[in-house]
Amino acid sequence: MSKKRKIGLPPGTLVYTGEKTDIDVKITYVEYNEGNHRSETYERSDRLPIHQSNESIVQWYDIRGLHDINLMQKIAESFGVHSLAMEDVVDVHKRPSYTEYKNGHFISLKAFDYDPKVKEVQTQTISLFFGKGFVLSFQEHEDDIFKPLRDRIANSSGRIRQRGSDYLTYAVIDVVVDRYFSVIDKIEETLEEIEDTISNDVDAINKGEIQETKVNLIKVRKSVVPLREALNQFIRSESNLIDPSTEAYLRDVYDHTIQVAESTDTLRDILGGLQDLYLSEISLKMNKIMQFLTIVTAIFVPISFLTGLYGMNFEVIPELKYRNGYYMLWVAMVVITLGMLWWFKRKKWL
Amino acid sequence: MSKKRKIGLPPGTLVYTGEKTDIDVKITYVEYNEGNHRSETYERSDRLPIHQSNESIVQWYDIRGLHDINLMQKIAESFGVHSLAMEDVVDVHKRPSYTEYKNGHFISLKAFDYDPKVKEVQTQTISLFFGKGFVLSFQEHEDDIFKPLRDRIANSSGRIRQRGSDYLTYAVIDVVVDRYFSVIDKIEETLEEIEDTISNDVDAINKGEIQETKVNLIKVRKSVVPLREALNQFIRSESNLIDPSTEAYLRDVYDHTIQVAESTDTLRDILGGLQDLYLSEISLKMNKIMQFLTIVTAIFVPISFLTGLYGMNFEVIPELKYRNGYYMLWVAMVVITLGMLWWFKRKKWL
Amino acid sequence: MSKKRKIGLPPGTLVYTGEKTDIDVKITYVEYNEGNHRSETYERSDRLPIHQSNESIVQWYDIRGLHDINLMQKIAESFGVHSLAMEDVVDVHKRPSYTEYKNGHFISLKAFDYDPKVKEVQTQTISLFFGKGFVLSFQEHEDDIFKPLRDRIANSSGRIRQRGSDYLTYAVIDVVVDRYFSVIDKIEETLEEIEDTISNDVDAINKGEIQETKVNLIKVRKSVVPLREALNQFIRSESNLIDPSTEAYLRDVYDHTIQVAESTDTLRDILGGLQDLYLSEISLKMNKIMQFLTIVTAIFVPISFLTGLYGMNFEVIPELKYRNGYYMLWVAMVVITLGMLWWFKRKKWL
Amino acid sequence: MSKKRKIGLPPGTLVYTGEKTDIDVKITYVEYNEGNHRSETYERSDRLPIHQSNESIVQWYDIRGLHDINLMQKIAESFGVHSLAMEDVVDVHKRPSYTEYKNGHFISLKAFDYDPKVKEVQTQTISLFFGKGFVLSFQEHEDDIFKPLRDRIANSSGRIRQRGSDYLTYAVIDVVVDRYFSVIDKIEETLEEIEDTISNDVDAINKGEIQETKVNLIKVRKSVVPLREALNQFIRSESNLIDPSTEAYLRDVYDHTIQVAESTDTLRDILGGLQDLYLSEISLKMNKIMQFLTIVTAIFVPISFLTGLYGMNFEVIPELKYRNGYYMLWVAMVVITLGMLWWFKRKKWL
Amino acid sequence: MSKKRKIGLPPGTLVYTGEKTDIDVKITYVEYNEGNHRSETYERSDRLPIHQSNESIVQWYDIRGLHDINLMQKIAESFGVHSLAMEDVVDVHKRPSYTEYKNGHFISLKAFDYDPKVKEVQTQTISLFFGKGFVLSFQEHEDDIFKPLRDRIANSSGRIRQRGSDYLTYAVIDVVVDRYFSVIDKIEETLEEIEDTISNDVDAINKGEIQETKVNLIKVRKSVVPLREALNQFIRSESNLIDPSTEAYLRDVYDHTIQVAESTDTLRDILGGLQDLYLSEISLKMNKIMQFLTIVTAIFVPISFLTGLYGMNFEVIPELKYRNGYYMLWVAMVVITLGMLWWFKRKKWL
Repeated sequence: MSKKRKIGLPPGTLVYTGEKTDIDVKITYVEYNEGNHRSETYERSDRLPIHQSNESIVQWYDIRGLHDINLMQKIAESFGVHSLAMEDVVDVHKRPSYTEYKNGHFISLKAFDYDPKVKEVQTQTISLFFGKGFVLSFQEHEDDIFKPLRDRIANSSGRIRQRGSDYLTYAVIDVVVDRYFSVIDKIEETLEEIEDTISNDVDAINKGEIQETKVNLIKVRKSVVPLREALNQFIRSESNLIDPSTEAYLRDVYDHTIQVAESTDTLRDILGGLQDLYLSEISLKMNKIMQFLTIVTAIFVPISFLTGLYGMNFEVIPELKYRNGYYMLWVAMVVITLGMLWWFKRKKWL
Repeated sequence: MSKKRKIGLPPGTLVYTGEKTDIDVKITYVEYNEGNHRSETYERSDRLPIHQSNESIVQWYDIRGLHDINLMQKIAESFGVHSLAMEDVVDVHKRPSYTEYKNGHFISLKAFDYDPKVKEVQTQTISLFFGKGFVLSFQEHEDDIFKPLRDRIANSSGRIRQRGSDYLTYAVIDVVVDRYFSVIDKIEETLEEIEDTISNDVDAINKGEIQETKVNLIKVRKSVVPLREALNQFIRSESNLIDPSTEAYLRDVYDHTIQVAESTDTLRDILGGLQDLYLSEISLKMNKIMQFLTIVTAIFVPISFLTGLYGMNFEVIPELKYRNGYYMLWVAMVVITLGMLWWFKRKKWL
Repeated sequence: MSKKRKIGLPPGTLVYTGEKTDIDVKITYVEYNEGNHRSETYERSDRLPIHQSNESIVQWYDIRGLHDINLMQKIAESFGVHSLAMEDVVDVHKRPSYTEYKNGHFISLKAFDYDPKVKEVQTQTISLFFGKGFVLSFQEHEDDIFKPLRDRIANSSGRIRQRGSDYLTYAVIDVVVDRYFSVIDKIEETLEEIEDTISNDVDAINKGEIQETKVNLIKVRKSVVPLREALNQFIRSESNLIDPSTEAYLRDVYDHTIQVAESTDTLRDILGGLQDLYLSEISLKMNKIMQFLTIVTAIFVPISFLTGLYGMNFEVIPELKYRNGYYMLWVAMVVITLGMLWWFKRKKWL
Repeated sequence: MSKKRKIGLPPGTLVYTGEKTDIDVKITYVEYNEGNHRSETYERSDRLPIHQSNESIVQWYDIRGLHDINLMQKIAESFGVHSLAMEDVVDVHKRPSYTEYKNGHFISLKAFDYDPKVKEVQTQTISLFFGKGFVLSFQEHEDDIFKPLRDRIANSSGRIRQRGSDYLTYAVIDVVVDRYFSVIDKIEETLEEIEDTISNDVDAINKGEIQETKVNLIKVRKSVVPLREALNQFIRSESNLIDPSTEAYLRDVYDHTIQVAESTDTLRDILGGLQDLYLSEISLKMNKIMQFLTIVTAIFVPISFLTGLYGMNFEVIPELKYRNGYYMLWVAMVVITLGMLWWFKRKKWL
Repeated sequence: MSKKRKIGLPPGTLVYTGEKTDIDVKITYVEYNEGNHRSETYERSDRLPIHQSNESIVQWYDIRGLHDINLMQKIAESFGVHSLAMEDVVDVHKRPSYTEYKNGHFISLKAFDYDPKVKEVQTQTISLFFGKGFVLSFQEHEDDIFKPLRDRIANSSGRIRQRGSDYLTYAVIDVVVDRYFSVIDKIEETLEEIEDTISNDVDAINKGEIQETKVNLIKVRKSVVPLREALNQFIRSESNLIDPSTEAYLRDVYDHTIQVAESTDTLRDILGGLQDLYLSEISLKMNKIMQFLTIVTAIFVPISFLTGLYGMNFEVIPELKYRNGYYMLWVAMVVITLGMLWWFKRKKWL
């Protein structure tokens, strides 16, 4: 949620809603067309050169870090990004969406990281703005998740060098969505572990693990379902910035989001089943405990009563005088015990 | 719910359905255009001047307090508000909605306050009616939630002074919707607290807190989902009172309502998970208690039986004559106890 | 459900499916236009005069009691009501619906009464058939719920006297729907009572009250959701029997049905939460009981074992000879007891 | 489910998927128009005369028993029924559906019987194929559920004799759907019985009865929801085999299917509530049992400890020498017991 | 899930995501028209002849095994299959879908096998690509599930020899979907077994069997619901590769997928009911155990107290001197026991 949201500020005011940080914003610039390719990295944000529109090449600015509001403002102005779009770029709580502006298309989506230590899905916001011949990608964290894609451009592998900014946008989204599958795989493994633990030793269940997995699934679903809708709108856009041949690729990544969404639903159903299994295992264990308590009680209480009986100090208790009284009592107690055991056996408590 | 609803009264009859109060209705009047700005406050309702339509300025009447039916009637007449719209203004149970009338647009929505002491979301109804050059805003409570907006108008910050009544309407809605996020944040914090409490000390759970949080979420959702629909209708309205450039802003606030609605769903799922966690913690605690009881019983009942056995008064109990009888019994009892403990250990009850 | 449904009878056969009764059908006739007004009541059904169509006035026949099939038949014929509509009029299990016939519109809906003694929502079927200049209203029970409306017509209050049969139909529906709100209020109060009872004394819960409230909510929802759909169809009808100016009023009552439907959903969610609260309270109480049992057992079983130990009759039990043996045992027992209490305290069982 | 389904057979292959039987297929033939009426019954399937198309009359072949594949084939050919339709006729697991073929309309639906002994809803598949001047009705079981309809045709009651094959089809469907209501009534009665049993004596609940009722409701819903869709398609068909005046009747039966579907939903919600009630009653009973156990234990364990105390054989136990020791102990024990009872009273355990 | 998914690879890269295997890919080639039929089998993938387009015959390549990427590439090129389609062919986690490409139609679906030993549904991915005069079918496993279909083609049974590649595609899908029904049957049988086990001996329930059955149902549903959507798109395709007469057959198989989807929903509801039944049986059993424990305790604790009482060593306990003291105590104990039993009987605990 948006912990630092502005109330009463005019719309379009840039307010960074993420964690404050002192790290410099990193900007990687790539330009390419079928024949040429050039790449530069800017560590210090103020050195960013002025954007020059050039129709014959594709220019990609990959901005990592959103907290430098001044830089954001400068970029927004030099590419003519709508102020509402920039407001969304710096709002890390923005839900995935697609908006078509006059001079470009804005797409917001979430990238996932899975932290295996705490079994937690970590989310960062990625925003894309692409127009004629340029793509701006903004990401919250500084890890360079688009490196494989830049390598592909550099190596000229695949068809990316022959295509425009719409295809590059697709390629960026594709990288992000591909990462969803590995998160889904991780959650699936966790579910299998939980199932094994419940079946083998219900007490060994890590408290709250089921709940954490549920929260992870909710996070993934909350990101992927709006993205699916956003991609659907993107595909149906009739903008001439999008080449018809790109549509098949967009459909493909759209299909992947459907698959991820379906997987989260499936995993959620399975998790729901595991929770039921867990509850019934706890109840079953309680039954076991109670059965044991009852058996112990039911065997010893009657025979203890007998020992109490013959521990009384009445002057006249004829049995106490019997020569074999003590042995007869033992026989009686063994018979009672065996009878109880037989009865519990028949009741399948043993 | 509408505790004081009229049955059998003709439609359009103004019936105030909120809490009766003696406080004067407060009216703040603002008029502005790009160059000029004037603001007045009326504490006593009867001094309200007669509305004069003026196309070159935007006039905003902010009415706080709905209980003065006569005043409401007078306002309705001077601005030509439809009687059904006015009936809705004074009905504090009105669900959020949008209606287009001949001479203006009516929007009803809910504003939230979060009372941190009782952790309760408090709701008030806000109604907006805007036409050519004027906006009427009606709110139930007297706290001045639109002050930041009036300040922005006064300071001429943002683009509001260059725009018409449609943009002002948007800005008012935006202020209300922005406040939703902080309520969502508060509920989220409460959920985190509940989760911590359940994990650490399940008995410390404040009875009913889960239910109260659920009710808060229901309240928010009940307000935001119809508002989302109302904004959707508002956007699709083809009225010439709405400038095309305002649409992007309306879409933005519409998007915020979607985000709030999705957040309530998410929080609800998480809350549902917490409830399951809570129930399983209670069951687990019961298991623990029962295990302890069973262990105590299973250890002491057999050895107590032995003490009873040798407390009997039979004339012939050979063991009682043994020189080391007492010590042998102690050995037997220690063996039994250790055996039990080993067995419970193996069963992981200890 | 339809306990007395006909199987194999031709469609359009009138079969009264409600409770048989000997009470006479009561018919109240009102005719009015802007200037004139006349009202008559027929206690004995056979005296009903023949309907004479008159375009300059609105004629309203309010029929209370549906069991007199012959009378129904006569009415159907004199107004040209379709036989399938009449079949629906006398079927008290008919779900709310709207059908447009050639010479009129048929609307079926449910009116509610709340019986505070048994906290039960009671339902009756109301059918409306209106055509050019006339409205027929059929209701199952004899209580005169439309009296306030007839008074309004008589007193010429509101705009009803200037309008046609479509507006009268709206007004009748409005009266019925307004009554829904008070039922919702009653159910809301019941929920608050249940919540208080659960929090204060879970055992004082009236068995089955939660279930009864749920059934009440189901009843209301089952009636209001189809009515909402029916009104939606009614509004979209392009019949020239409906004056365009009536639409705003129909929309208003349609909006009320949405509000009632949303309220039932909300209350249902709250009730679901109460049920969870109830179950967890029962479990918590069980935990309390078990804790108490376990504490009592854990304290007394060990010290009772000690008393048993020194109640044995071995010839050699050295401790028994100790001068302070008895007092030392007391010390031991007090230490054991205090140790247990301290341990339970630490475990927060006390 | 389809226990005998063919895999790999070409589509359109007739495979009877129901129970094998030796009973002869029964065919009842009726032909009628406004003036004439003739009816014949064929017990032995091979005697069936060749169909002769006759536009001035309606011909109805009612075939009871689907296992005679050769007969089915012969009928299919003589009426030109599409092979896929015939495949569906003999598949008793076919879900309700509507298909329009070139020379006729095919409708598949389910008829219910309620077996009061086992409280089980029994389902049979009914298929209808009607074309110009003829209706074929196929039913799985041999009981003659359409007799009342044939009697109506014979007695010329209602408007059926003046109408065509479309109206006859409607009338057949109407008979089947009317039977649904009595099944719903039966299930409703069962629910009331279950509720009474739970409230009065939770142990008397017949194991599995709730589950069986749930399965019955699932069966009904599974049959009626697809039928509703099928009828909706049927109504919207623009075939000239369907007279416009029949539409009002089809809408009526369509409305009945909606009502049945809504009733199953309602009953299911009620049943869900009963299940919750049942579970809470079981828990409450457990609480009662535990309270009783705890009270017995808490009263007797302390006073038994006292008796053990004074049963010890220490040489020095001063109290044992007291003249009134025994009586003082009795007083102590009575005080302890009364104290315990008072405490339980205050805790509302008694 | 896709355990081996590529991240950062260009779209259209063929990555086999299934289990690695050394088995040779098996290819069965069939060509036929109304008069001719020829069939060949290729065990070693490299011998596959070059495809020659021939409009007068239908050519069917059935490829079993997807792991030979080079072969896949070769096939893709010789038939002009789009690279995104081929990427989907070798992705065994691909969800069922339908895509229309310029030179053919791609359909992905899942085939099921039921392993009776572990009661697990096993899934394999089947992909179909058909164009003018040819059908490519790709399946993950090597078992020849389409043999019956090839036999039908060889034997010229049914209408398949007179039809084109669209009908063959339908026939292949039909074979796969027919197999769904037997899986549904198996799951249904498992549910009946589970119900029997719960009713007869709740402890005999195989741990996790309910969960496994739920997972099976989720698997089936996850495969059949997207397939239903894919078939719906297939039917609505206006491609001239699909003969209008094929539509009735596609609708038939589409209807089957609806039936399977509805059955999974039904079975899931039934399974949900079984789970509730299971939980209530566990609780009931617990109640039984507790009742027994309580009865044993309540009978023996009071009479044991009495024996303790008269085992005390007070010097003055008058009752101990009574001649019939012992016998009187026995009478008292029998009376207490009978009283307890009567009381438990009345409470229906016995």
